[in-house]
Parts: sequence; structure tokens; C-alpha cells
Amino acid sequence: MTDYPLILGIDGGGTKCKAVLFCAEQQKIIATGIAGPANPVHGIEAAQAAIISAAQSALHQANLPRSQLANLVVGAGLAGVNLPKYFAIMQDWAHPFQDFHLTTDLHTACYGAHNALHGSAIIIGTGSCGVSLIDDQTLMFGGHGFGLGDKGSGAWIGLTAVQHVLEAFDGIAAPTQLSELILNKLNVSDPYAIIERLTKAPPAAYGQLAPLVFQAATLDDAVAQSILRDGGHYISALARKLLATNPPRLSILGGLAHLMQDWLDQDIREKTLPALGQPTDGCILFAQHKLKQR
Amino acid sequence: MTDYPLILGIDGGGTKCKAVLFCAEQQKIIATGIAGPANPVHGIEAAQAAIISAAQSALHQANLPRSQLANLVVGAGLAGVNLPKYFAIMQDWAHPFQDFHLTTDLHTACYGAHNALHGSAIIIGTGSCGVSLIDDQTLMFGGHGFGLGDKGSGAWIGLTAVQHVLEAFDGIAAPTQLSELILNKLNVSDPYAIIERLTKAPPAAYGQLAPLVFQAATLDDAVAQSILRDGGHYISALARKLLATNPPRLSILGGLAHLMQDWLDQDIREKTLPALGQPTDGCILFAQHKLKQR
Repeated sequence: MTDYPLILGIDGGGTKCKAVLFCAEQQKIIATGIAGPANPVHGIEAAQAAIISAAQSALHQANLPRSQLANLVVGAGLAGVNLPKYFAIMQDWAHPFQDFHLTTDLHTACYGAHNALHGSAIIIGTGSCGVSLIDDQTLMFGGHGFGLGDKGSGAWIGLTAVQHVLEAFDGIAAPTQLSELILNKLNVSDPYAIIERLTKAPPAAYGQLAPLVFQAATLDDAVAQSILRDGGHYISALARKLLATNPPRLSILGGLAHLMQDWLDQDIREKTLPALGQPTDGCILFAQHKLKQR
Repeated sequence: MTDYPLILGIDGGGTKCKAVLFCAEQQKIIATGIAGPANPVHGIEAAQAAIISAAQSALHQANLPRSQLANLVVGAGLAGVNLPKYFAIMQDWAHPFQDFHLTTDLHTACYGAHNALHGSAIIIGTGSCGVSLIDDQTLMFGGHGFGLGDKGSGAWIGLTAVQHVLEAFDGIAAPTQLSELILNKLNVSDPYAIIERLTKAPPAAYGQLAPLVFQAATLDDAVAQSILRDGGHYISALARKLLATNPPRLSILGGLAHLMQDWLDQDIREKTLPALGQPTDGCILFAQHKLKQR
């Protein structure tokens, strides 16, 4: 086995870090590992520790010794490294691997979705953003982060719902079924408790409220429908910017992609194609590409 | 002088803490002191340290020894203690004063504005909120905090402007003169630098951008005007909720009150009255009231 390089794909996001071990001899994934969040913006050391932990889990599952870390060729797609500062920090990391090839989780998700180094993708999970990988160029749209942007994402949907619910308690915004759903979900009894619970909460805490908004929308709640319509228009606008780059394929990915599908403009629904593979497949493809360039 | 109680007013906000020392014998303020932020939500120990520091400065200016802290009857109006958790924490503080009477900065601003314990006020500074003090009842509206609410406030105006500017760079939102003004103000050259600078920035950092939005609005920038119109409608809606409580007076207070005046609905502009005194005057009034109750 040591005649063939062992390739490790790392898909690191704000919620978890997933490692997949690919055996070049067998041409397949032979083990996986999961660890905690690996977005360096929310903790550099935590992200590095999660990557190593996920890698060790995968080695363990493959019955390989921990010392094999030093032989791994890693292709890592991480959230947060679209910010140059965090890319530089992770690039300069004194990592324990043979090679550590770094790009954004957006790139590797796109590689995986198209099984190719070219194409466009929008990711809708806790955050949202779009990317076109065309002729060695990377064109990014959105992805400005929680609070500043990421419209149409789970965290944005949850935050916008909470903003409305708080105004509704004041009698300023229209009443909505979301008030009851959000109080129940957070297991609190009044708006002050919502504020205490959510002040300084991470984006994922808001993302966990997003399913309630989809639920309320199916119950004909006008506020929930308006939030999802706004989010859908924004995602559709991102898609139009991406389509203008003439990509071979456009896919919409991420945990909320399926639920948001119904809220996209008709023309965009017709122009998106299903993903051919997972983000971790994209990490492997990325590492293989880098290996060929050596 | 020690025959008369020394009253200290503390006006503590997210930007600074101001202390005023009132001599009951001379019936006037004899010294003032300034220290750092005193919003316990953003740091309990920092808030307590700022209150003591501002008090010591005021004693020093009055040529009184530090030991006089133990003789001060304090009336404190603090930001953040509208949240019951932080009110309880500050109420239980083992403070160095003779008495520490605590209420929200909204209450003391209202007392000061009307030179009375009854009336309504809206505060528009880094945050925004409204209060009616009627028949020993406190009715609060808004004040949900940065990110969750505080529409029409400096931080909300700045954040909303930055959100639009980032979408404009993507070619998704309409272009605006705010892009250039904000890049210049932050001394950065591109949207990524804006994001790096402002991710995790405190509300005050956004509040510092608000004057640019008022500036762009006077240059007929449609985006800036739309943001201020939205903010003005929200503040007007808050004012209508307060007027429905039949207060003897309604004032609009805070650092942005004057600039927002032009963006309020006509009927609200006509129904607001100027403040008769400062928030620190309200703190003194509050302490005097508590002293009479002993």
C-alpha cells in the first residue's frame, strides 16, 4: 500500500470536519473520520485540532498507525479561508502531513458536484455563497458571512425570523405563527428570553431555527413565506451572476439546497443540475490534481 | 458637607460611563468623571470597574478622598440591564458605595428629559429603543440589541449600509456612493477588507459609519435615503406605540436623535418635545427619589 500515495480529503465547515481516506491502489475511499468545527475564523487552533482528529479517526478505521499521518497527501476544503488572512494562517500551519493542499470548502464542493475542476455552484447551509471556477479563474459572489450577508442561508433565515418575531411582540410587525414555533423550539416563554438566549449565539444557533420557517410557510404563514421569497430571490440573483460566466454546469448544494429549491425563480430552477458527488469527493479530486502537478 | 448626602449619578452606556457628583447642600453638580464602557452585557467586570473609575474621577475633581466612595448614594442608569439576567447580576454586585440604586439607561434618560418620573422617550444612539413610564409601570418597545433589532440606530444604519455595499460589489444590489465613502472611512481598498475589518466588530464600529449614510443621503444617494426612510418609519412606529400610552411628554433623545428628526413621519415630528435635561440629571433625580423613600 505504501507504494501508492494515501490521499486524505478534508471537508471542514462551521459544524463539523469530515475526513475521507482514498486508496489509490483500490481507487476507492477506504475509511472516514468525523471531528468538530474546522472554520479557522471561529478558532484557528480548534480548526487545526479538528483536522488532525478527523484524519486520525480515518487512519484508525483503516487499521493504519497514527504515524501514517506523515505520509498523507491532504486535499482540504475549509470554510472561512476565502478570507485571505485565514487562508495565509492555515497555509503557514506546521501541519503533520506529507502535503497539505488548501482551498475553500466552496471550491471542493464545486469540484465534487461536477466531478471536474470547472463549473459553478451555490452552497446553502448555515451560510450561503456562490462560485464559478472557469479557466483557472475563481469568481466568488456572496459569502459575506453571518450578519453582513449570507442571505437565503439557514442562519439568515433564522435571524430574519427572530427579528420579525421580536417586532411582532412589540405590536410593530405583523403577527406570525413563527412566534409560537420559535418560543417552543428555544423552550422559553417570552421575548426577553429569546434575546438572552440568542445574543452572541453562533450562526448555527440561528440556522437551527430555519426549518421552523419552512414549516410555517407550508402552514400559509405570510411572514415565513415573505422571508423565504426574499432569500430565494437573492439566491436566484447569485445564480444569474454565475450563469453569466457560462459554466459547463451549475448545481445548488448544501443542507438547505433541497428546501430552498421551491423558493427559487422558475428560470433558475430549470437551469440547475444535480450534484454528481460529495464535497469530500472534490477534496480527493483536488489532492489528485495537485499530486499530478508535482 | 457630610451632613448632606452626596449623590452620584452614573450614566453607563456601550461607549462610555459618565459620573456626576451632586451636592445636596449647594443643590448643584460639583464634579464629573468619565470612564470606559459600562454595558454589563459586553463585560460585567469591565462595567463595574468603569463605574468605580468614573466615580473616583468625580471625587478627585471635587477634591474629595477616595474613601468618600462609601458615603455616595448612587443612582445608576445602565445599558443592558433591561435584560433581567444582567439586572440581577448588577443588583447583586458587592459595590463600594453606600447605596447603589439601579435602573436602565432608558429610565434615567427619560427622567432627565422630562425632569420627572413620568413620560415617554425614544433613544437613538448606537442602539435604539422606546420606553413609557406611566403610573409606576414601565412599557418597553424595541431595544432588542445589535443584529436582532435596534432598527433606526447608528449600528443598524451602519450595518445595513455595509450589507448593501457588499451586495453592490457583487453586482446584485444597486450601486451607491456609500461604497466609496465606507472604503475611505475604513481606509481599505476592497470588499474582502471590509469583511475582515468588520467581522466580530462591536456595534459601535458600525455606528461610526452611520454619519456617512446621512452624508450620502444629502447627496441624493437613493440607497442611503432608503435606509434612513426605513429607519425613520420604524422609529415613528415606536413613537406611535408610546403615544398610545398617553404620556405627559414624548422626547427623542441620543446622539442620532437630531439627524433622524428629518426622517420621521410628519405627525411624529410634530408630537415630540425637546428634552429638559440630560440623562445624568435623570440619574440624580432617581437617586433623590430613592433617598426620599428611605
